[in-house]
Amino acid sequence: MKLYPKITLVGAGPGDTDLISLKGLKALATANVILYDALVNDELLAYAPENALRVFVGKRANQHAYSQQEINEMMVAYARAHGHVVRLKGGDPFVFGRGGEELEYAAKYTIPTAVVPGISSSIALAGLQGIPLTYRGVSESFWVITGSTTMGVIAKDIYTAAKTDATVVVLMGLNKLAEIAQIYQQEGRGHLPIAIIQNGSLPNEKVVLGIMDTIVARAKEQQVGAPAVIVIGEVVAKHEQFALHHHRAVAI
Amino acid sequence: MKLYPKITLVGAGPGDTDLISLKGLKALATANVILYDALVNDELLAYAPENALRVFVGKRANQHAYSQQEINEMMVAYARAHGHVVRLKGGDPFVFGRGGEELEYAAKYTIPTAVVPGISSSIALAGLQGIPLTYRGVSESFWVITGSTTMGVIAKDIYTAAKTDATVVVLMGLNKLAEIAQIYQQEGRGHLPIAIIQNGSLPNEKVVLGIMDTIVARAKEQQVGAPAVIVIGEVVAKHEQFALHHHRAVAI
Repeated sequence: MKLYPKITLVGAGPGDTDLISLKGLKALATANVILYDALVNDELLAYAPENALRVFVGKRANQHAYSQQEINEMMVAYARAHGHVVRLKGGDPFVFGRGGEELEYAAKYTIPTAVVPGISSSIALAGLQGIPLTYRGVSESFWVITGSTTMGVIAKDIYTAAKTDATVVVLMGLNKLAEIAQIYQQEGRGHLPIAIIQNGSLPNEKVVLGIMDTIVARAKEQQVGAPAVIVIGEVVAKHEQFALHHHRAVAI
Repeated sequence: MKLYPKITLVGAGPGDTDLISLKGLKALATANVILYDALVNDELLAYAPENALRVFVGKRANQHAYSQQEINEMMVAYARAHGHVVRLKGGDPFVFGRGGEELEYAAKYTIPTAVVPGISSSIALAGLQGIPLTYRGVSESFWVITGSTTMGVIAKDIYTAAKTDATVVVLMGLNKLAEIAQIYQQEGRGHLPIAIIQNGSLPNEKVVLGIMDTIVARAKEQQVGAPAVIVIGEVVAKHEQFALHHHRAVAI
């Protein structure tokens, strides 16, 4: 039987299995191999054919199971040996997902590729909490920033963002929370609302609401942990429980 | 029969019907009424029960079919009269979708609400073109900005964004293209890559690639029109056809 190597990058969405797209499911249904990440809900693997290979390539805790280079090589090797490889990634493949590097690597070996976008945590998790990323007259843009840059330091974009009215979403930034709060405080924005959403869209979802001046204490007290997204901006005050926690006059 | 009024905001995705989530389909399957926008692919209506009411509330061209206030009132009136209203919106309900206002209005009338996030054009359409919004060492953030603010003028965030390395995505900004190019040129960034994606994810999808210095001419020559997203940043040079069009040394 002739093999047709192919690699499809599929965004699995933020965690809830029902938040994958119909197109993502169709890709899974024709997979010969699935290479999946730690942030992918593994119940999704049930949508693949029974005899498809399921290979976990994620990072758990601080163990780097595979390097990006190794994942790239596995993608190509599996496609050549087995046919259709679905590279199943949490959220959307191109939002800090290194999907760009994977497409380039596949192209180098002239293996056909396809992309199925996913619902990104950067947008969806705020919305599921009733926090609109944009709101007329309050925020006309949103800026998604990684808390964990290539260099391991806080993205310098955060300093610029703290001077704007943009809603800011920080991914993988929980361990930089104190630093982020300080940057905003130095801009005189200690009262700016902020939310931390842990395990968004899953049954064990947890949200911590606060303002820059209080968020570090609140996060500690409520023992929030990774994976989490941080949402910053006046729109956070739209959360239905925000006013209960904060007896300040909310100007919006 | 007792009625249970409920309003579910559902993100329909960027256009391709297969890019709606499984959860969105499940919401549609239990709808008594669907209020849908112009940017929603109306083939999705086939997923609703045959006897569900299908009400178009979108804006076509420059006709404002219904004001936001009228849509809010219809949502509540239909929920009370018919039960489950699915408010079906293009992309994600909270990315310039005014979903926040709709949730607030429903809360005022104590009608239960739910949210089903969608795949946002702001992220997905670049990815479908093989343009990664983030790329290690090139862009560690992306900033999504509306080209059409409440006041009708260009968002002031564009001026700030033009000074950063963030990938910038402008929605509803095609008629501001010349102004956007000029802002970047004034920052000395006339060679920065830019893409315009029209009808993204649909069979008539069209992409125009250029740099700030050339994009206005190219857009005119290729007769690109709305709806379109604009993607700005060095990551645009990752598009597989970019080099063909631009014989400049791409540093990345």
